[in-house]
Amino acid sequence: MVGFANYEELSRALLALTRDVPYETANLANAAALLWQAMEDINWVGFYKMEDGALILGPFQGKPACVRIAPGKGVCGTAAWLGKVQRVADVHAFPGHIACDGASNAEIVLPLYVGGRLWGVLDIDSPVFGRFTQEDEAGLGAVAAVLERVLGDCVEAKHLPIDKVGK
Amino acid sequence: MVGFANYEELSRALLALTRDVPYETANLANAAALLWQAMEDINWVGFYKMEDGALILGPFQGKPACVRIAPGKGVCGTAAWLGKVQRVADVHAFPGHIACDGASNAEIVLPLYVGGRLWGVLDIDSPVFGRFTQEDEAGLGAVAAVLERVLGDCVEAKHLPIDKVGK
Repeated sequence: MVGFANYEELSRALLALTRDVPYETANLANAAALLWQAMEDINWVGFYKMEDGALILGPFQGKPACVRIAPGKGVCGTAAWLGKVQRVADVHAFPGHIACDGASNAEIVLPLYVGGRLWGVLDIDSPVFGRFTQEDEAGLGAVAAVLERVLGDCVEAKHLPIDKVGK
Repeated sequence: MVGFANYEELSRALLALTRDVPYETANLANAAALLWQAMEDINWVGFYKMEDGALILGPFQGKPACVRIAPGKGVCGTAAWLGKVQRVADVHAFPGHIACDGASNAEIVLPLYVGGRLWGVLDIDSPVFGRFTQEDEAGLGAVAAVLERVLGDCVEAKHLPIDKVGK
């Protein structure tokens, strides 16, 4: 990892970066940038949000990406459909894999829940087969927990009067 | 420029990438990724949107960035305030410059209008002093025109019944 000792330190930095910021898109864009800076050997990191019954592309870092993924399709759609982290060592062996970037060989997708409902997913691609270990899965679980809290706070902030909205 | 002969070709690619996509965040995220891929010697490209009376960070490529910019502050705030492109050869000489990334030395900011109102800005930073020429300003003007059209279409799509919403 670059600039952080471990995922715990990264999670704390993410919390500091997004605390009291009531804007969902701004927080997700900064979160993707932070992960992009910190994680080695990745070629895409970003978000898909459940909208109109599908996963719709959100802020990310990397090459232009697919806009809409149907639930159950590919690694992202499977994570959303099952509500379960998908850690894939070789995406080419994954049934129905959607190739947005031909350089991607491994992928990890974590579903994000807000208020007990599926909000969307955090999606990370790597050109390195088997890039994501059990340790990465556990560490990114902590990152996802911070993101869920941040997203929940953004939803709440929408209902605050404007002068109560933070930085 | 990488992968495109000129800004005209880049603008056409941007139009193709976003055509019939009714999701603002997805289109802005893909637009930032396309510009990031195509433009040489830049270290940040992305969007700020007018919200709650300030410019709020949108999708981007580059390092984590300032979330909120007051109107009239820095290069972005000045472009928004005056409704005029700001092409700055040396940001350190710009009054009230906001240093999000210490590596940035030059900047260009283009205001974007939708339905006759300021929507926000397209902001591009470079580590190279004097990076943005008159030619870049003209070319990015064409890119901004496509973005304004895309953003306008996204606003319209919000009012369509769901089965009329494209890919």
